[in-house]
Amino acid sequence: SSGTPEVIIPGASSYNGLNLVPQMGWDNWNAFGCDVNESLLLNTAQKMADYGLRDLGYNYIVLDDCWSIGRNSSGYLVENHVKFPSGMKEVADRIHGLGFKFGMYSSAGIMTCGRYPGSLGFEQKDADLWASWGVDYLKYDNCFNQGQSGTPKLSFDRYNVMSQALNETGRPIVYAMCNWGNDDPYDWAYGIANSGRMSGDIYDSFNRPDSRCPCTEAVGCPWPGFHCSVMNILNKMPAIQSRTMSGYFNDMDMLEVGNGGQSDSEYVVHFSMWAMMSSPLLIGTNIPTLSPANLAIYSNPAIIALNQDPSAGAAIRKWRYFVDPDENGEGEISLWTRTLDNGDTVMALLNAANSTMMMNATMNDIFLDQRTAGAYQEPEELRQTWDVYDLWANRMSEAEAGSLINGTSTVSPNSTTRYNATATSYEEGLENNATALMGVHVGSIAPSGTFSAEIARHSVGVYRLRAQSSSSLRKRDEL
Amino acid sequence: SSGTPEVIIPGASSYNGLNLVPQMGWDNWNAFGCDVNESLLLNTAQKMADYGLRDLGYNYIVLDDCWSIGRNSSGYLVENHVKFPSGMKEVADRIHGLGFKFGMYSSAGIMTCGRYPGSLGFEQKDADLWASWGVDYLKYDNCFNQGQSGTPKLSFDRYNVMSQALNETGRPIVYAMCNWGNDDPYDWAYGIANSGRMSGDIYDSFNRPDSRCPCTEAVGCPWPGFHCSVMNILNKMPAIQSRTMSGYFNDMDMLEVGNGGQSDSEYVVHFSMWAMMSSPLLIGTNIPTLSPANLAIYSNPAIIALNQDPSAGAAIRKWRYFVDPDENGEGEISLWTRTLDNGDTVMALLNAANSTMMMNATMNDIFLDQRTAGAYQEPEELRQTWDVYDLWANRMSEAEAGSLINGTSTVSPNSTTRYNATATSYEEGLENNATALMGVHVGSIAPSGTFSAEIARHSVGVYRLRAQSSSSLRKRDEL
Amino acid sequence: SSGTPEVIIPGASSYNGLNLVPQMGWDNWNAFGCDVNESLLLNTAQKMADYGLRDLGYNYIVLDDCWSIGRNSSGYLVENHVKFPSGMKEVADRIHGLGFKFGMYSSAGIMTCGRYPGSLGFEQKDADLWASWGVDYLKYDNCFNQGQSGTPKLSFDRYNVMSQALNETGRPIVYAMCNWGNDDPYDWAYGIANSGRMSGDIYDSFNRPDSRCPCTEAVGCPWPGFHCSVMNILNKMPAIQSRTMSGYFNDMDMLEVGNGGQSDSEYVVHFSMWAMMSSPLLIGTNIPTLSPANLAIYSNPAIIALNQDPSAGAAIRKWRYFVDPDENGEGEISLWTRTLDNGDTVMALLNAANSTMMMNATMNDIFLDQRTAGAYQEPEELRQTWDVYDLWANRMSEAEAGSLINGTSTVSPNSTTRYNATATSYEEGLENNATALMGVHVGSIAPSGTFSAEIARHSVGVYRLRAQSSSSLRKRDEL
Amino acid sequence: SSGTPEVIIPGASSYNGLNLVPQMGWDNWNAFGCDVNESLLLNTAQKMADYGLRDLGYNYIVLDDCWSIGRNSSGYLVENHVKFPSGMKEVADRIHGLGFKFGMYSSAGIMTCGRYPGSLGFEQKDADLWASWGVDYLKYDNCFNQGQSGTPKLSFDRYNVMSQALNETGRPIVYAMCNWGNDDPYDWAYGIANSGRMSGDIYDSFNRPDSRCPCTEAVGCPWPGFHCSVMNILNKMPAIQSRTMSGYFNDMDMLEVGNGGQSDSEYVVHFSMWAMMSSPLLIGTNIPTLSPANLAIYSNPAIIALNQDPSAGAAIRKWRYFVDPDENGEGEISLWTRTLDNGDTVMALLNAANSTMMMNATMNDIFLDQRTAGAYQEPEELRQTWDVYDLWANRMSEAEAGSLINGTSTVSPNSTTRYNATATSYEEGLENNATALMGVHVGSIAPSGTFSAEIARHSVGVYRLRAQSSSSLRKRDEL
Repeated sequence: SSGTPEVIIPGASSYNGLNLVPQMGWDNWNAFGCDVNESLLLNTAQKMADYGLRDLGYNYIVLDDCWSIGRNSSGYLVENHVKFPSGMKEVADRIHGLGFKFGMYSSAGIMTCGRYPGSLGFEQKDADLWASWGVDYLKYDNCFNQGQSGTPKLSFDRYNVMSQALNETGRPIVYAMCNWGNDDPYDWAYGIANSGRMSGDIYDSFNRPDSRCPCTEAVGCPWPGFHCSVMNILNKMPAIQSRTMSGYFNDMDMLEVGNGGQSDSEYVVHFSMWAMMSSPLLIGTNIPTLSPANLAIYSNPAIIALNQDPSAGAAIRKWRYFVDPDENGEGEISLWTRTLDNGDTVMALLNAANSTMMMNATMNDIFLDQRTAGAYQEPEELRQTWDVYDLWANRMSEAEAGSLINGTSTVSPNSTTRYNATATSYEEGLENNATALMGVHVGSIAPSGTFSAEIARHSVGVYRLRAQSSSSLRKRDEL
Repeated sequence: SSGTPEVIIPGASSYNGLNLVPQMGWDNWNAFGCDVNESLLLNTAQKMADYGLRDLGYNYIVLDDCWSIGRNSSGYLVENHVKFPSGMKEVADRIHGLGFKFGMYSSAGIMTCGRYPGSLGFEQKDADLWASWGVDYLKYDNCFNQGQSGTPKLSFDRYNVMSQALNETGRPIVYAMCNWGNDDPYDWAYGIANSGRMSGDIYDSFNRPDSRCPCTEAVGCPWPGFHCSVMNILNKMPAIQSRTMSGYFNDMDMLEVGNGGQSDSEYVVHFSMWAMMSSPLLIGTNIPTLSPANLAIYSNPAIIALNQDPSAGAAIRKWRYFVDPDENGEGEISLWTRTLDNGDTVMALLNAANSTMMMNATMNDIFLDQRTAGAYQEPEELRQTWDVYDLWANRMSEAEAGSLINGTSTVSPNSTTRYNATATSYEEGLENNATALMGVHVGSIAPSGTFSAEIARHSVGVYRLRAQSSSSLRKRDEL
Repeated sequence: SSGTPEVIIPGASSYNGLNLVPQMGWDNWNAFGCDVNESLLLNTAQKMADYGLRDLGYNYIVLDDCWSIGRNSSGYLVENHVKFPSGMKEVADRIHGLGFKFGMYSSAGIMTCGRYPGSLGFEQKDADLWASWGVDYLKYDNCFNQGQSGTPKLSFDRYNVMSQALNETGRPIVYAMCNWGNDDPYDWAYGIANSGRMSGDIYDSFNRPDSRCPCTEAVGCPWPGFHCSVMNILNKMPAIQSRTMSGYFNDMDMLEVGNGGQSDSEYVVHFSMWAMMSSPLLIGTNIPTLSPANLAIYSNPAIIALNQDPSAGAAIRKWRYFVDPDENGEGEISLWTRTLDNGDTVMALLNAANSTMMMNATMNDIFLDQRTAGAYQEPEELRQTWDVYDLWANRMSEAEAGSLINGTSTVSPNSTTRYNATATSYEEGLENNATALMGVHVGSIAPSGTFSAEIARHSVGVYRLRAQSSSSLRKRDEL
Repeated sequence: SSGTPEVIIPGASSYNGLNLVPQMGWDNWNAFGCDVNESLLLNTAQKMADYGLRDLGYNYIVLDDCWSIGRNSSGYLVENHVKFPSGMKEVADRIHGLGFKFGMYSSAGIMTCGRYPGSLGFEQKDADLWASWGVDYLKYDNCFNQGQSGTPKLSFDRYNVMSQALNETGRPIVYAMCNWGNDDPYDWAYGIANSGRMSGDIYDSFNRPDSRCPCTEAVGCPWPGFHCSVMNILNKMPAIQSRTMSGYFNDMDMLEVGNGGQSDSEYVVHFSMWAMMSSPLLIGTNIPTLSPANLAIYSNPAIIALNQDPSAGAAIRKWRYFVDPDENGEGEISLWTRTLDNGDTVMALLNAANSTMMMNATMNDIFLDQRTAGAYQEPEELRQTWDVYDLWANRMSEAEAGSLINGTSTVSPNSTTRYNATATSYEEGLENNATALMGVHVGSIAPSGTFSAEIARHSVGVYRLRAQSSSSLRKRDEL
């Protein structure tokens, strides 16, 4: 008798069925640190709805460290009632009422990084409490872990306790590990979590090396640290690129756009590349003081659509050259590509050198993986002509962004600049070639051709490539 | 009373008595990935028999990932009946009927790399099922291993469970570990397996560095990755050369010859060096579309005889110089040698630089190990004159290979170009100096002499050296 | 019912409530090694009181290795009665009587580094004995640890046994781990100890590399070794800077000032940077032979106040340039800053190059962390004008130091050069702007300004910066 | 009641009371590998006695791998009766009868490196058998260890089982670990063994790098390998120099002198530096074919006296400069010094560059450790004038060595060239300033002086320094 097999569908599940595309939302840490309270959360949520950010998909409000005041005599955490006078359950209810989900923070140690009580040894009690509050998401840090690390097994076992505890609650809770890449979580956390940080903490710098972030590679890094720049984190991704997949995402840390430490084009690089890599997109700035320019960056649906693409993969760095260093001693250019779910390919030409560069991408570079994947015949991709769409060409004007901020916008929520993902998922939108997701057609690449573009200093060009006869592209049940 | 000792004969056994020389065959992954089904396997087997590949020794047909559809209620795996409508047992029977053995794939994790059910925790059930189907070979991968790695002990313990389970079935099953060199399996897997991968996955490139394959050495590599080039993998072997031995082979991954990413001479390097290193030889391309030139590479019996030599060792890289880099920034030349079972020595002059090189090998280089192995008298090898045979000189012509492909060949199966190992083992053939195994005599090297040859860009010269009075060569019971 | 939460106040506690600022005192090892006896301890304590060192805060007298003679039949350690004829309890009493606390040494191994009996397996017996003697401090070494290391967990578990044993005694005992940074204690020891060595042993050299101290970074160092120079140890700190905190200090090892191997300005660097980094300050020389110049270094209250600042943090290395190497092949300049508890900032311009340098610190460098910490508005610090105080400008003259040594001093114990921390803590002194803690006003830095100073070869300028309108500086409950 | 303390005397014991100075003797592996039999052992022992080697201290005859034929039904090993027709007990008795001790080989794995049965899981049975045979010494290898390595704890635990088993036999057996430095045994094996290999296997080359010996440092080496040259092994010692001590020696592997791969002066370097480092001195060549020149190297009592000095320490590499590379790309000069038990200092000027060098050693270099060891006053050593003795100046002539070989020697066994350590220990001989131990006086070094000597390519000068008024040298109970 054969029984009824339990079918496993490759590439379409996750350990708990959640987070098939990367989580999006807001987290207070980058801009506020421990300065948390309920009005910050609620005001932020209200503004995010008003500015259209919620409907672009930023739908988790995550409260980071420093919210508790200790444990009660039963061992349950107690929220700080000065900061949260309504009580955390009420805060969660109001956040839900605004159309958001609610995220919470703790650490797999005896204390949080801020030296508040940690969850090590209290996993089930804490998970039960959060579930009773209506928590939908847990960021789970790595501070004060009592030395329970040093091999993948030690870290897996510690993080797995909370994974099991969350499942035990019965409530769907996205589990976002934050162990900074210690013991290579990208190699073992898929089965127990929905995302995992792969580097030390970001800081608001484009590429300045800092002695507190000593590694330039994720794998084999003995000390993730913090004060890692955008370019530092980005360049730790290529080696582990294949470990980003539907249901488990390599988390490059929260976004700094809006915090003042980088130029507009540097923030465009930061946002574009986080989207390209399928990193979670957590806004990390003060929403009420957001400038129109920065809102326009966060609000580019054509870029967000890359992040939310059902392919759920990370871009590949096809080449990298060290050139033309800046005042930090850093200079490089690189080409990144990624195949999307509908057969499109996206390509980023990244100029992190010190001056404007004419950059080129050949068909051979773009489709390297197809060329070398057992192609006993020339791959179809190389025989296509590809239309090229610039995904930043429709960036919202400052005037339009300003009108969103001051509540005077008259632009349709479905235009070349705006998109409502609450109403129509990105997947559906892409099936329908929604205008706002496609950018502007700027040319094409013929077989054996080369795409060239002038890219400014510390800037990026991001292009969606669509085959002119894409229906002929062979689809394979392949990984 | 002395009792009856259990005799251990050095160098002639293995953990389960199998695989005293490296396994040969075909595996679908490199060319087909998850696109598997029974007709692919059966058609391939038929063609391999027709083209003479089976009788050259390629006698395992290995089905890689993506063949199952889940587990039944008893916990047994169930094959995908759409892909394998006859059922796996029937497929195995037909493969056996064509004169092949049948190989199967799983992973020492909760899922396979393709996210099908893995065998971790189901080892005995899975081994029993495969044995009941008539499986002869298991490729056992490392994906989704729940962090059970990080020290040799953790990896050993996990892989040992399947080793014991396979033994428990009573059926002889070759156990091919595929843990990519994690935790240095070359140092501990001899006692539990028949071969072990020592690097991240190969891709069809001669020497292009790729950010997804970050290591250049096997030992101490924190992240094996994939997209490793032929030269990358080859140069990871010298440090662990001594850990290849009869019954346990360092597996350099499946062959890319025929997949289109390399030139003819690059494929010759790839095939020659895999043979020299006693790596398993698994053809990784689409057999029905194989070109005559590529068939001629796979079909060189003089090279295969190196691989199947009872010495079962790996070549030593005697020297390596970085010179004359190509467009990938890579350029080097190297000398490799290996002592064979009958006292012959094989030598490869490898030119991975960017232009033709006149390359030299001195007697001191070739016989370095003899010179430095406690030679309290001058080693006999250095006092010999050695005849030199070029092992690629008798490469099958494209016309002849084409006639094998279209079934019109009239060449004898035992000629200068062809060999039937089913009828006569390579060991026997070498004892009889079978023509097809000896190549063409191209000169000799006197004591204190030097051998020189012009080697083209990205090419290799492979030479068998035979002492003119070899009967005088001292044989030692030595390791 | 909510129960009564146990309040955790961030940044103001430690595992046992002790050592909220770094320990200060004297340890015999650097100058005497195993040449220990009771008169050495008692004479040293008397002199330290006489010279004013005790009242500057150096109030632990730590007896290092080689004091025992074995274990008695009950398993308790026995002191060497030749060296300590009065018995250890009596020695402790007399030390207490001189106004000091008493420290003791052992090793988390079967023997101490000097091959005297170690405490591994005898933790509770030894802790009980020490408590019965009145011991206030334990330096706990790492020699002969039976291989119980190699992962953070193995080291944590071993050191935790003594931590628990000390707590069990009921006596407050500062626990100073000395495992040389093995297995990254800065990442796990906060919860079980009060300080932890982060490097191999110091030796009395400013910057000479030595083959016995092979690492230049703390993290990932496979062999801490010994014979580490001042600059070697200092430059291992930046990566782990954030792991120094109130209650747990990264211990850079005992001070060499006075031992003859460095110039006066090199000793000034050594002492200043240990203070800046909140390293424990243990005098490691022979007090009775201390020169006036060296006493003046140990006695600078403005520098000690940095070390004893309630902020309890370590300075950040903002930049480092390799320039102008000396005869050891070493040459570099660097900028270090640290934010103090009262809103002041301290800055060190360190010249470890081979000649005098004009060194500059910009406001952007000094306040980098404020600029990049989610500053959605320009940080207040950058809009301030800062007064600059040179903390070495009031260094005690050799004449004055000499008068302390020969007991003829007539200077007030609260002058520009002297401070009595027994009477008034540094925290209080800073609140009151005690003269001796503030150095000499030498200028100011305006917004967008740069501070410049000529710094001699192998020397350092240390400056306290105070905002002219510091009351406006935003205070955040932040980490 | 105080009880009776168990006194631990620093620096004069070992885990089992044996091997307070390094073991000396002969091992067959380097020259014979698996070609072992009883007549080889007995003939070698007879010749070693005849040539005076036994009485120079070479008194262990160690039988290496390949001596067994399996285990009997009771689980006891059985010797190969073809190779050892008299039985191993009888062989041991005869070796004892010739005035030697008898050493034996096994591996802490399931097989020896030669794939004979290993002792893992059979430790007590094997130890008991060896004790019953009269075995005095065990070389214990690391092959096929089932992955029981990867942390110091895993290796310690495995090697400790045999340590306990040997102790359990009640027979004094020197325990020589051979785990190639895996998991840093120099840091944990003192408590369980008498020596421990710290590198991969030596081969008979002075300085040729080989891909099979990939590390240049011992600490942090992921793959010890083999085919390590003399200079490679030597330069792995400085970082771990302090871990050589009485009762536990870092074993640099067996001597190659006599095997033909190096020049006479290179062998002098090899032998001198092994002696300087207190490495075990195991002759690794064929004694009956030993040349007079090579016998003269092995027979220099002034050099052996360094090795057998009760200080039992290893020399320190004071400086190293990379200069003048040879055909292997290697070139360096270095200064090594070591303080001896009687207050003398030994100094080696090593020229591993490609041409003759005038080399200098300053007093500051020679006495660096004294200068920097808490010297609150100028160290006595720097104020001394030191007489310099060349320890190779009395090297035995080839004529004299030849007369020992052919049995015609008429030289007194106690002359400038010969020494009988069986009659008078080296310690006693040094107390009496035995002529043969002191070399030839060649000059002196005044305070602040410099010693200079012309050292030939690939050669070494070894000098004993004796203070002219050495009685004034302070002796400290110091480590």
